[in-house]
Amino acid sequence: MKLEISQVVQGCRLGALTGLGKTAQHSLETPGCLLYTRCGSVPHLTQDTLHTLTSLPAVTQLTLATLAEHQEVLEEFKEGARKFAGLHDTVVYCSLHDPAAPNPPGYITNKTVSVWGSGGRIELTVARYMALQAAIQPDWYQSMADGETGQENTSRKRVRKAVDRTLSHLDECLVLHQKMQELKEVEIFGVVEGGDVREERLRSARETAKRPVTGFVLDGFQSGVMGADLRSQLIAATTAELPQDKPRLLQGVGRPDEVLDCVEAGVDLFESFFPYQATERGCALCFDFNIEPDPERAGTRTPTVLNSDKEEIITGELLRENGDGSGDAPGKMTCFEKDLRDKRYREDFRPLVLGCSCYCCRNHQRAYVHHLLVTNELLAGVLLMLHNTAHYLSFFQALRRALAQDRLPDLKKQVLQCHQGQ
Amino acid sequence: MKLEISQVVQGCRLGALTGLGKTAQHSLETPGCLLYTRCGSVPHLTQDTLHTLTSLPAVTQLTLATLAEHQEVLEEFKEGARKFAGLHDTVVYCSLHDPAAPNPPGYITNKTVSVWGSGGRIELTVARYMALQAAIQPDWYQSMADGETGQENTSRKRVRKAVDRTLSHLDECLVLHQKMQELKEVEIFGVVEGGDVREERLRSARETAKRPVTGFVLDGFQSGVMGADLRSQLIAATTAELPQDKPRLLQGVGRPDEVLDCVEAGVDLFESFFPYQATERGCALCFDFNIEPDPERAGTRTPTVLNSDKEEIITGELLRENGDGSGDAPGKMTCFEKDLRDKRYREDFRPLVLGCSCYCCRNHQRAYVHHLLVTNELLAGVLLMLHNTAHYLSFFQALRRALAQDRLPDLKKQVLQCHQGQ
Repeated sequence: MKLEISQVVQGCRLGALTGLGKTAQHSLETPGCLLYTRCGSVPHLTQDTLHTLTSLPAVTQLTLATLAEHQEVLEEFKEGARKFAGLHDTVVYCSLHDPAAPNPPGYITNKTVSVWGSGGRIELTVARYMALQAAIQPDWYQSMADGETGQENTSRKRVRKAVDRTLSHLDECLVLHQKMQELKEVEIFGVVEGGDVREERLRSARETAKRPVTGFVLDGFQSGVMGADLRSQLIAATTAELPQDKPRLLQGVGRPDEVLDCVEAGVDLFESFFPYQATERGCALCFDFNIEPDPERAGTRTPTVLNSDKEEIITGELLRENGDGSGDAPGKMTCFEKDLRDKRYREDFRPLVLGCSCYCCRNHQRAYVHHLLVTNELLAGVLLMLHNTAHYLSFFQALRRALAQDRLPDLKKQVLQCHQGQ
Repeated sequence: MKLEISQVVQGCRLGALTGLGKTAQHSLETPGCLLYTRCGSVPHLTQDTLHTLTSLPAVTQLTLATLAEHQEVLEEFKEGARKFAGLHDTVVYCSLHDPAAPNPPGYITNKTVSVWGSGGRIELTVARYMALQAAIQPDWYQSMADGETGQENTSRKRVRKAVDRTLSHLDECLVLHQKMQELKEVEIFGVVEGGDVREERLRSARETAKRPVTGFVLDGFQSGVMGADLRSQLIAATTAELPQDKPRLLQGVGRPDEVLDCVEAGVDLFESFFPYQATERGCALCFDFNIEPDPERAGTRTPTVLNSDKEEIITGELLRENGDGSGDAPGKMTCFEKDLRDKRYREDFRPLVLGCSCYCCRNHQRAYVHHLLVTNELLAGVLLMLHNTAHYLSFFQALRRALAQDRLPDLKKQVLQCHQGQ
């Protein structure tokens, strides 16, 4: 894996991760996102349905949390989780937690972390963690980490302990990694912890950077854990300590406005659980990231496909109903989506987003998806997941294009316009 | 619509319905089944995913029960339910009730029947029923009917009333049908009622046959309502009163053994809700209908793909756990399927059914579907629905092939072998 940075604009790194996967043939443009899965599947979608989407990320994220209980099966299967889940040709990254699932605090010890399967809690030592990675056979994984710094009033002492443990887990992981035949040529990312304590963030970054890791996972910055400004400052301070030529993956941040902030703070990679969360609440992503039509008038409120369609009013209304989402618990509706259960879509025969070329928007109207949702029909999730994934991937494309054209402020303005209803 | 019977073998009618749809270009081989939908969608499947299956029926069944609450929307939409639901080129048949949903008794009056939407009960007069059909714009629909004869101890008087009301509804439907521009060239089936009272069945059949209907719906024979022998006798007696050249559609019967019995009694068409029910209980259809490999040994217990694979033992076990299903409430597991949540599939890396060419069996193993089910992953339903639909459609193909080769007894033996575990 190699990170090639082509341009740095106001802290934002535009580039590409190349040489990915065992054959080193895959690449991923940055800033970019990984493909979110649960138990190896993109929720609701078969691999064939998924591949009706263009520009899928070359990297699929599996989570140890959703696979740990199947350790024996994977060991018996012998050919790794990619084949077990029937995934098409893709690079596989394995993280510890599922960013869209709750991760109850209070179960971390000096030597273990816990994940939750359908049968309850599974406690992992480094040895078991690495045995699981050997059974899953990813191309790339994160080291085991103590990320329990997000509670209110977490003491400095607890934060220091999290950093220490995480470094110690990394060292143990690296020792076992060397010994395991299954993990030959597999890449490992070190995890930077430190909660909201600046010195601990810097220490964690510096110490992790000394180890032979391919890249860095930034943990403990999940949405809602701290204010946006503090997070941006901490991430910027942290990434300043990390080598420029290694990628930084941020965990637990998916909202478009937050993604933009974190890219400015030096983040390269994101998880893509946000479209899944919107799907599960019956919402369609609809935020506008189109800055192409009229660059001359970017400073004014340019008419776009969406607000020419009175979408702006709609998102404004949703905003007032639901708050702007900062500090919201994960899973709450944001102003970047529309609630298709809402009665206003009952006789709305337009596609979810005008001009969207996803399967759902090409074939169905808002009224039909509304009607599937209110009658609890199972196709609703399939259609929304397709659209939301397509919309989110297009947002990342637009982000890279805006960076290449040095037009990030225009993009931010466009994306944040749903806040203007306030 | 025209029914061409090519062969009658022991009461079974082999043929084809031709000239279906507004362009009269579609046809459907009989005995056959319609494609089951809810709210216009095959549960879990996009139209594209659905069309990975070969040999789909040319006719899609919509149910008024799942569309009635959207009457205003459909009226506003103006282009009919086929287009509203984004269905590919297909003939649309609209029935009154959803065969896979409960239909509580006690809500029928002289002039109305009721269906249940997400917002509660919707009471339908013939006028509203017909207005709904005009909004849905099917190619073919059943007349309104009083089917409330399935309760235990339904009196003869109540059965007689059901027959009278259903005839009177049909007459009213026919009058309105003539007047409605939207229903020009649309076909109407009359409904035969009569519960378990032979004379009423005969009267209903004779009277309905006098009306200008294209075919007949046989109602009140739903699984569990009466014993299999009585049902077969009543259906045979009823179909003997109906003109040979018009199709007979049986409602509410989907189990393979029951389908075979009813074909022998003269039924041409079935609803295909059975694969959906199996999907929702986490089961894969696996019953064997393969009579090709060794016709010489058909009288003995021929090894087949499935029992060479120890499947026979498995279905035998399931049978003992679950009973043979006769008289079961709809929704209970039958011996024609396997429960993929069962632990025995945890490390079973074979396709759901060996030799099955559906998308699921080509790409996934039992262990993976098991693992999706136990972790409540949303892809499980998609994969099972694909396999179960494919398996069920193949069963109907095998049935027609067996009839053409005069080998129905061999097919029956094969399909019923799961009963042999008793």
